[in-house]
Amino acid sequence: MKREPFVFVIMRLNLKAVLLFLTVIVMIITSAVYMRCVEFTFPQDLVKRWDRRLYAVGNADLLHDQLDGSDDGRGGIATNDGFNLQELQDIECIINQEYTVHCKRDGDNREVYVPFSFLRHYFDISGAMSSPASPLTTIDGNSNSQAQSKFLWMHSTAKINVPKGKYDARGVFMYFENYNVEIRDRVKCISAVDGVPVSTQWEKKGYFYPTQIAQFALSHYSKNLTEPEPRIRMLENVDSVQANWLLPSKISNLTRIWHPKFNSSVIQYETASDFDSAIALKEIDQTLDLVLSADLLLVTNSSSLMITVENRETKHTYRVHYVPVDLLLSVQDENIYYGLGLQALNKWHHLTRDLHIDVQKGMALDGPKKSPIRVKRTDLRILAVSFLGVGFFDNISLSTYDHMANFYDAAEWLVNNQDQNTGGWPNPVRRSLNGFAELKAGWLSAMGQGHAISVLARAYWKSGGDKRYLKAAALGLKPYRVFSKGGGVLARFMDKYFWYEEYPTTPASFVLNGFIYSLLGLYDLNSTAPSFIANEAGQFFQQGMISLKNMLLLFDTGSGTSYDLRHLSLGVAPNLARWDYHATHVNQLLLLATIDNDPLISRTAERWKGYMFGKRAKHN
Amino acid sequence: MKREPFVFVIMRLNLKAVLLFLTVIVMIITSAVYMRCVEFTFPQDLVKRWDRRLYAVGNADLLHDQLDGSDDGRGGIATNDGFNLQELQDIECIINQEYTVHCKRDGDNREVYVPFSFLRHYFDISGAMSSPASPLTTIDGNSNSQAQSKFLWMHSTAKINVPKGKYDARGVFMYFENYNVEIRDRVKCISAVDGVPVSTQWEKKGYFYPTQIAQFALSHYSKNLTEPEPRIRMLENVDSVQANWLLPSKISNLTRIWHPKFNSSVIQYETASDFDSAIALKEIDQTLDLVLSADLLLVTNSSSLMITVENRETKHTYRVHYVPVDLLLSVQDENIYYGLGLQALNKWHHLTRDLHIDVQKGMALDGPKKSPIRVKRTDLRILAVSFLGVGFFDNISLSTYDHMANFYDAAEWLVNNQDQNTGGWPNPVRRSLNGFAELKAGWLSAMGQGHAISVLARAYWKSGGDKRYLKAAALGLKPYRVFSKGGGVLARFMDKYFWYEEYPTTPASFVLNGFIYSLLGLYDLNSTAPSFIANEAGQFFQQGMISLKNMLLLFDTGSGTSYDLRHLSLGVAPNLARWDYHATHVNQLLLLATIDNDPLISRTAERWKGYMFGKRAKHN
Repeated sequence: MKREPFVFVIMRLNLKAVLLFLTVIVMIITSAVYMRCVEFTFPQDLVKRWDRRLYAVGNADLLHDQLDGSDDGRGGIATNDGFNLQELQDIECIINQEYTVHCKRDGDNREVYVPFSFLRHYFDISGAMSSPASPLTTIDGNSNSQAQSKFLWMHSTAKINVPKGKYDARGVFMYFENYNVEIRDRVKCISAVDGVPVSTQWEKKGYFYPTQIAQFALSHYSKNLTEPEPRIRMLENVDSVQANWLLPSKISNLTRIWHPKFNSSVIQYETASDFDSAIALKEIDQTLDLVLSADLLLVTNSSSLMITVENRETKHTYRVHYVPVDLLLSVQDENIYYGLGLQALNKWHHLTRDLHIDVQKGMALDGPKKSPIRVKRTDLRILAVSFLGVGFFDNISLSTYDHMANFYDAAEWLVNNQDQNTGGWPNPVRRSLNGFAELKAGWLSAMGQGHAISVLARAYWKSGGDKRYLKAAALGLKPYRVFSKGGGVLARFMDKYFWYEEYPTTPASFVLNGFIYSLLGLYDLNSTAPSFIANEAGQFFQQGMISLKNMLLLFDTGSGTSYDLRHLSLGVAPNLARWDYHATHVNQLLLLATIDNDPLISRTAERWKGYMFGKRAKHN
Repeated sequence: MKREPFVFVIMRLNLKAVLLFLTVIVMIITSAVYMRCVEFTFPQDLVKRWDRRLYAVGNADLLHDQLDGSDDGRGGIATNDGFNLQELQDIECIINQEYTVHCKRDGDNREVYVPFSFLRHYFDISGAMSSPASPLTTIDGNSNSQAQSKFLWMHSTAKINVPKGKYDARGVFMYFENYNVEIRDRVKCISAVDGVPVSTQWEKKGYFYPTQIAQFALSHYSKNLTEPEPRIRMLENVDSVQANWLLPSKISNLTRIWHPKFNSSVIQYETASDFDSAIALKEIDQTLDLVLSADLLLVTNSSSLMITVENRETKHTYRVHYVPVDLLLSVQDENIYYGLGLQALNKWHHLTRDLHIDVQKGMALDGPKKSPIRVKRTDLRILAVSFLGVGFFDNISLSTYDHMANFYDAAEWLVNNQDQNTGGWPNPVRRSLNGFAELKAGWLSAMGQGHAISVLARAYWKSGGDKRYLKAAALGLKPYRVFSKGGGVLARFMDKYFWYEEYPTTPASFVLNGFIYSLLGLYDLNSTAPSFIANEAGQFFQQGMISLKNMLLLFDTGSGTSYDLRHLSLGVAPNLARWDYHATHVNQLLLLATIDNDPLISRTAERWKGYMFGKRAKHN
């Protein structure tokens, strides 16, 4: 109690200064806080209710001036948005009096903002951020990062392929150099018997789909023209290149011998049947160039060619076996078996295998069906090439690709699998199109016929005139003459215009893209065949072009295209083309415009291109 | 200087309390301000840079809890939005790599908001606020008013008319009871000679457009069936009702006489030619029931009937004159002249005039062309009915409407203006359709023929079998047999299906709505005429229905309809139907579905209706 008066007395001369100091502090803090704090108000019971209307309308400019003066760390954004908060508010959008979407509006109702997630669905359009911005970058509100992040509104994401020049029946087929048929999920594998794809599109067990086989051929033919020369690594040609084959046991042996029939040296080998006694070429360590070529003659059906492949990422090792048995593809653990067919026994066979595809298809067969396991081409490494049983071989090489081998494999398949009576390449599966009677297995497709003819015309030309290709192509015209009901592919629109049907439905379905592909086949044969065949193809082509020009606008919806004319045949809703099919229509017209100068074609192509960018035909 | 130590001494015992008080005040103010102020931060140089990322992501829930605690006058909104401001930011949308639209996004890029003003234009849709909210209400941010204000997204604003029952050729024509042909801006006026509308749609000076005249008739016929009985105020019938006519001068006189020809009493009058000497019925003070009827015989061409009408809002007075001269409509100051034609002289004439329309058309002629002056029906008041010159009259009445008088006026016009050779009601103006050769004046329209036949079939039935109407209707079938090139309205699609052309273009244009109207005319005649005429109409109708069913889907774009098939005829973009024409297509099909049970019609109508609500056909 004594000390207090004492202290008080000591301080008393300074008390005036202390009081002044404290008052100044109160004022500074209060005003500092107030200046920084736009949202500040006194408790409701102390002041009259704040009239936000005055604040927003009357004093807006004044407030803006005040706010621009403050400049703390986040003040620029915070105060701006603190002001904007009055402009963007939630509002319910009632969509066609049917349902509700949460939107935003600005304060004076000059604008309503609609969420893209709704628009995407409602109008079937696409959109994406211009860069994969992380949440942290985008929340960081400085204006530079805001300027960088943009939203890309894409009416369609499909791609237009502008032809580089006049279409040439001997050249690239459309833009098929971009196709990779065999990697598609609906390709089960490449048959080791024929070297052509096996489809599972409409039947799970797999079947030969002529259209797909022809596309496989046309893509490799086109790639051959557009890609650089392949790298080829010859492992063994029994002549200039001789490999160091490992013979693991006494039973295994290998001899280089002269083969009089081929006028060439070959290797003759014999091993026991277990993997360990295989003669092998090891430490190959080959990446990227994964296309194996070999000439092969197996003597017993327990003989095989076996390739050991490693996934460098997972360190998994796969053994790919080529065996002379009637088997398409079979997988047991790390062993993937491709059948060469019993007929391969004791016959020389030239094999071209993409080991990436062969491993991938084996893994897909083994793995879950819904989301097949993928292996990257760059992850694979070939470790060893081995032979088992009894046989001969020659010319073992690894290369980047061998497109022409793939092309001729398919061309041979087409020659060997044509119905000599109808001229068709029958589709061996039932096909059901919504609203139409089911097509029975064996139906022909104008698209398949056209594609096959495009392949065969190129094979005829590229082979320097192999008549077998020409003959098959010419025979392939036959279904163009026969109405669908009679087993052909011909239809007629309103008893007037002839149409070649991708699907020979009753009533006709008039699929546009398949029709144009069927025309390209005719054009290709007309361009490459001797006149007596060329003339017939040319007549069918001209007849088709007349139909196309008179019917093309039937597919135009003013904002896109329809895939077919089933709406006219069945009296149902149009079957609108999704954007990638629409792009195919455009691409096909752009190509046709290089060989037919009727402005209708180029003009329609340009308008249809515009539809992909949200353009629409005018309304009246 | 003396006083300061003194004050200080007086206060010194309280100084401790003062200091404590000041400290507490500082703390209270500081903390109170801080609690109310989310945006508060210390100046940048005093604290570390605030990390907004932590604020938004990590501490969001915490912050929300804090914010919910504050509840000042505007705090609820302010702080909420103060928080939301971090979620909605500006972002540029690049539209199809072509142009930029200012959008909003939320902070973690889960949603992008697109302004409706862009969507409206891009997708051709409509939208509106649910209520005409004023800026003040909408800026007022309390949550109740926010919940009330909604945005109505309307894919189409056009109206569907669901038929009330099976279509009846003797009943209402479609939903034409909703039409008011004469009020349309493109109707110059109602001719006082014929009582039918005069169109300015394709020629400014005005012409008789048979389609419009028939629609005028059909709307009044339909209104007669759907509206209640009119109120009729008889002013003078020279018999049971005798008015108190004012005779302003000695020259003017008026006598009620027996007219032997009509077996009725009439008024005979005579006046000088100036307005002031007119015999007049004043203080009529009639509002709303503005349809004047009169039987009239004018002896000299300076004679006239004159109605004085006042606009009760503007206090303007108009004098509407009906004069026996060759004149359609003429306006001088407040005087509006309608010509009865020289041929009206010395002939009894029954006049039915809607004075609202007559005043309105006079004002429109006098006023600015672009935005015609409008006068509301409810604003008008009839002050006086006067007669000038020399003449006779009888049966002066004012009524709500006299639809059957309008209907028969139009039916008479059709009887009197048919080309007896072709059977057509020629359109006396050139008509230019984009892409087609111009139609020369005198062209016939299947829509005009059909509408006229619908009128005449009803007139024949309603009149109890007046053969003149039947004869004209039957003759009106003739152009259905003659191809457009030959002056008729017949076309053929792909050499197969017959079509009745609204516009007989070369090549054919195949306008859908006009075709269906032409079918309804055939149906109406088939339903009402004796069998020898009914049969021919029925054959044309059946032939047309076959075409319709086979061609209907040609108009279906999967998201709307096309107005015609010019895209097929000309190889151009489809001429998409704007929403009101699309709705007409739907309405027509819904009506046809009541008389033809082919499910194609009702099914298509339902799908087309769906397009108006943003439904689309599926894509493949």
